[in-house]
Amino acid sequence: MESQINLRETLHHEIPLTGAMGIDVVDYKNNTLCLSAPLKLNANHKDTFFGGSLYTLAVTTGWGLMYLKMKELGYNGHVVINEGNIKYQLPVAADCLGVCHISDEQLHRIDKQMKRRGKAVISLDVRLGDSLDSEQVLFTGRYAIV
Amino acid sequence: MESQINLRETLHHEIPLTGAMGIDVVDYKNNTLCLSAPLKLNANHKDTFFGGSLYTLAVTTGWGLMYLKMKELGYNGHVVINEGNIKYQLPVAADCLGVCHISDEQLHRIDKQMKRRGKAVISLDVRLGDSLDSEQVLFTGRYAIV
Repeated sequence: MESQINLRETLHHEIPLTGAMGIDVVDYKNNTLCLSAPLKLNANHKDTFFGGSLYTLAVTTGWGLMYLKMKELGYNGHVVINEGNIKYQLPVAADCLGVCHISDEQLHRIDKQMKRRGKAVISLDVRLGDSLDSEQVLFTGRYAIV
Repeated sequence: MESQINLRETLHHEIPLTGAMGIDVVDYKNNTLCLSAPLKLNANHKDTFFGGSLYTLAVTTGWGLMYLKMKELGYNGHVVINEGNIKYQLPVAADCLGVCHISDEQLHRIDKQMKRRGKAVISLDVRLGDSLDSEQVLFTGRYAIV
């Protein structure tokens, strides 16, 4: 719960656009972060979720998960996005969730990279849609910890 | 000039997030659209342009160019984004420009597709950075006109 509140405050304070979009933290457990954003603040001309907002929710979900994990592992590195790919498979016509999971194996690999070189790179998948398991939009981001 | 004013109004009215980001129309001529967004409304924790804002400026620049071209060609189709890829090559630490060009050949192909099938698909490249010819960030979007 404390991590959730801190992440929301961090996002809105350090990346003001996430506040303008109404991005909130829904859940964080089992190496999985879920963020949300309301349709009302993110609609397009067809009254569905704007593609720019979907991407921003996705990139922020991956960023948020790495931010929390780096804190837990005891590293102070900045998390930055190097590359992003997004596929809009179906429109989202409701409030939207972004879900990102990182495996123990991925975390172990990052920990090794950080210990060896003081920096790391990781690819994370984020799925987006109007429920926790929907995949209306799929995102893959390549993040660096520097 | 009229096209520029209409596009800004259309963007801010139909996609409110573009207003929250301060996206503006800088120039439109020779099949090339240039949009801008201020760093102040789009900064991240490192005081450079937030990756979500860069993507949103890019996807909006491509969308805006297609919106204007469809109007000029006399079509009423909606322009929607199917897929987006973005590479962050260098951080942008100032107000940012997005530049998108469409060739006569691409326009001719769209016109043919619209006449034949009433819909079309096109890939557009957008470059972003702190000056008109900089390529600090590169975006490719696959748009459909439906």
